[in-house]
Amino acid sequence: MPAKPQRLHVHFESNRGKPRIFQVHPEDVKAACRRHPELARRLRITVGFDREILADALQTADLMVNSDPPREDLRAMAPRLRWIQTTGAGIDGLLPLDWLPEGVTLTNNSGAHAAKAQDSGAMGLLMLNAGVPRLAGAQREHRWQPVYSTPIAGKTAVVIGYGDVGAAVGRAARRLGVKVIAVTRSGDVRAPADEAVPVSRLSRVIGRADFVVVATPLTPLTRGLLDAAMLARMKPGAGLLNIGRAAVVDYDALRSRLASGAIGGAVLDVFTPEPLPADSPLWDTPGLTVLPHITCDDPRYIAHLLDFWFANLRRLLAGRRLANIVDPLRGY
Amino acid sequence: MPAKPQRLHVHFESNRGKPRIFQVHPEDVKAACRRHPELARRLRITVGFDREILADALQTADLMVNSDPPREDLRAMAPRLRWIQTTGAGIDGLLPLDWLPEGVTLTNNSGAHAAKAQDSGAMGLLMLNAGVPRLAGAQREHRWQPVYSTPIAGKTAVVIGYGDVGAAVGRAARRLGVKVIAVTRSGDVRAPADEAVPVSRLSRVIGRADFVVVATPLTPLTRGLLDAAMLARMKPGAGLLNIGRAAVVDYDALRSRLASGAIGGAVLDVFTPEPLPADSPLWDTPGLTVLPHITCDDPRYIAHLLDFWFANLRRLLAGRRLANIVDPLRGY
Repeated sequence: MPAKPQRLHVHFESNRGKPRIFQVHPEDVKAACRRHPELARRLRITVGFDREILADALQTADLMVNSDPPREDLRAMAPRLRWIQTTGAGIDGLLPLDWLPEGVTLTNNSGAHAAKAQDSGAMGLLMLNAGVPRLAGAQREHRWQPVYSTPIAGKTAVVIGYGDVGAAVGRAARRLGVKVIAVTRSGDVRAPADEAVPVSRLSRVIGRADFVVVATPLTPLTRGLLDAAMLARMKPGAGLLNIGRAAVVDYDALRSRLASGAIGGAVLDVFTPEPLPADSPLWDTPGLTVLPHITCDDPRYIAHLLDFWFANLRRLLAGRRLANIVDPLRGY
Repeated sequence: MPAKPQRLHVHFESNRGKPRIFQVHPEDVKAACRRHPELARRLRITVGFDREILADALQTADLMVNSDPPREDLRAMAPRLRWIQTTGAGIDGLLPLDWLPEGVTLTNNSGAHAAKAQDSGAMGLLMLNAGVPRLAGAQREHRWQPVYSTPIAGKTAVVIGYGDVGAAVGRAARRLGVKVIAVTRSGDVRAPADEAVPVSRLSRVIGRADFVVVATPLTPLTRGLLDAAMLARMKPGAGLLNIGRAAVVDYDALRSRLASGAIGGAVLDVFTPEPLPADSPLWDTPGLTVLPHITCDDPRYIAHLLDFWFANLRRLLAGRRLANIVDPLRGY
């Protein structure tokens, strides 16, 4: 009997504390293997939760899918490991990447969020334009308080971060006739925008926005970017949509600008910590809609992740460069 | 000195009880006259409120702009009157039209609502798809309760009424990748839809809808159309958007289907009466977003009405058929 060709060992690791749609279960992997049978034959597969079998699995794993890989002494734990795929797009919880062993490639799930982000971008802009966050407060108090808004076409959105999520919001905005000013690290954009500026010029363009959209990962460059001084430069009555990361915006300063009416309304999908504690003052802030981190997440998320992972595996086996490699310097 | 050509007397009448954006003030008329100077020279103009000068004005008025014209003995009050333009699009408050004197043409402001209706249609569908009405209830109770929805593209909306407002919603839906089944009196449509059926077949298509949109005027044919039996035919978890008229839908039946979760969510912009009384149970119904009749109204409403009216005046003076003539039989 001829020797079997060497199989690659992939370990899928999930945290039961996360919502089910972000957990990789054995049935998810089996379904994905049925969609990719030729690649699946090349694999030995283990699936674990809450690190119950992680140490064992890593002794032989070549590949790992895991949003929270063990960072202490990873090379000693996982001598054969060469590729880690994270389950999520944002990897701010893993920064800095000084724990990543030499020879291990880290890829993220950036791009999985585009369809939902496009829907949510359109929804958020339209809700802000119509004043829905304020109207929800009036509903709570049984107050009939009509506020009439002009159509959204012709207004301007400043979109901070123009990766997959930001570009999806930009696409949604432009379909609504909204002019898009993209703000990126370099001022270059890979997706269509009406204007693009580097983040160093944010303070010069933010005052033109009817809507400010935060769609950036959390990096040392973006943390605290929308501080009190930057928020104060927003046009009176403008709206804020945050579907990026909470720590990009000073939420205390935002609350006081919402209370005074200087900022017309806000739709926030991201918080620190999550779940947002029941005693957070954000829940009852006038003009503020709290969404429970849902704007970019599709319930078919893991199925899409696994399809993406198999496509990347095909690249690996063909000796090609993987998609979505995280740049340790940029942090995304 | 040659005799001046006969000027037409137009009287603009408003009700101070309505929101300012639906009142025609002298400054609005002056601004419109500056936009249409040649036509304005042909007019003698009076502007009144709350019928303070109405009886006097009608003694000589040829034309009137008024959402609530006097209906008793109008011909005796207004011997020269030949054209009434209503301020609003819906004229259900004026039905039946048996009071309209022979020789007086009634035109409505249908079409003024398209841009806002398109925005609001997209917003309502996206809010229903993302479960925002339920999430707003969770926010009220400080509950973090994520619900993940698939992208909206590929879903189906049944749009009841496909006039200017319905067609605008249909356009918005199709831009989001949503399939549109238009429901009209005859089954014919003047605007693009994926399918169109007569209202007599509503019960056969309503079960296919992820979203049911009411965008119809209130007529004897539409009153009570979405009664308990029809609502019971909706797909489990589907959403309802009403930007037409309240009395088309049985709101009590809707409330019980929202409470049981049979209907996923509702966004309602129209009520009987308006303003919605503070003690209405609708304010606190789970899964129900109350909007204060704002989805179709642009604050530039009167400016647009007056521009429309001047364009119609040009038709009148040229002996052409007016736009937006109300059909007394159909009632819109």
